Amino acid sequence: MDTKVTFRIATENDLEEIVRMLADDILGDKREQFVLPLPESYKSAFKAIDADPNNELVVACSGKEIIGVQQITFTPYLTHQGGWRVRTAASQRGQGVGSKLIQFGIQRAKERGCRMVQLTTDKKREEAIRFYERLGFKATHEGMKLQL
Amino acid sequence: MDTKVTFRIATENDLEEIVRMLADDILGDKREQFVLPLPESYKSAFKAIDADPNNELVVACSGKEIIGVQQITFTPYLTHQGGWRVRTAASQRGQGVGSKLIQFGIQRAKERGCRMVQLTTDKKREEAIRFYERLGFKATHEGMKLQL
Repeated sequence: MDTKVTFRIATENDLEEIVRMLADDILGDKREQFVLPLPESYKSAFKAIDADPNNELVVACSGKEIIGVQQITFTPYLTHQGGWRVRTAASQRGQGVGSKLIQFGIQRAKERGCRMVQLTTDKKREEAIRFYERLGFKATHEGMKLQL
Repeated sequence: MDTKVTFRIATENDLEEIVRMLADDILGDKREQFVLPLPESYKSAFKAIDADPNNELVVACSGKEIIGVQQITFTPYLTHQGGWRVRTAASQRGQGVGSKLIQFGIQRAKERGCRMVQLTTDKKREEAIRFYERLGFKATHEGMKLQL
């Protein structure tokens, strides 16, 4: 892909486009609700992320178009001798931008002195798992979820 | 187990006992460094956790003895229609307290209106995986890690 991709922190004006992208996905389709005006829950989640110095919502842009989004969460841990970790959650339009998006998250993790980058991905997303393995991630752990 | 277990937020005075417990584990043994005085990295991680309203370090006690520890991390997300999640990481001495510890984390998640509780556990910890499944967790996701 030759498109020049730029990254910036998302603003409230990006929220509709971001939710549209999250909903336009074979799994996201079942759990998101893209209607306008947006449900209030998305707006309050955006405000909480935006206000938290340990959460960054980053959009990848081609010109003015948003082609990817990533939430980067920085967490201090006692384990691993007190290392910070990054948890990343990314969505994208098309295939070209995914790798750059994750590399951006890894770079942010290094800048803030993190010891580990981690994510969970649905076992049904076989292509995504291979994608992350090519970027150096290892599927050493079970990602266990309990819906409330 | 009949012991009365109480839960409270950890203080800096608990840190030595917590790190001793984290290191006293077949996997923790390889990555933690329990020496006195404690390495500075543990102290600064404790301070960062303690200062962050979205991180709670909780100890389970039997009398004055610390028998379990759990880090509870609250994270706002856009996905799942803007739901907060809890990520929990627990260690324990002996078998009796684990279930109470996780139930405590689930309770905190409900109190703060979270939609999901999640954790990752090493695939080598087969007994832990069955334990979390009995508590209602489902291993639907791969837990992927990249060491920096």
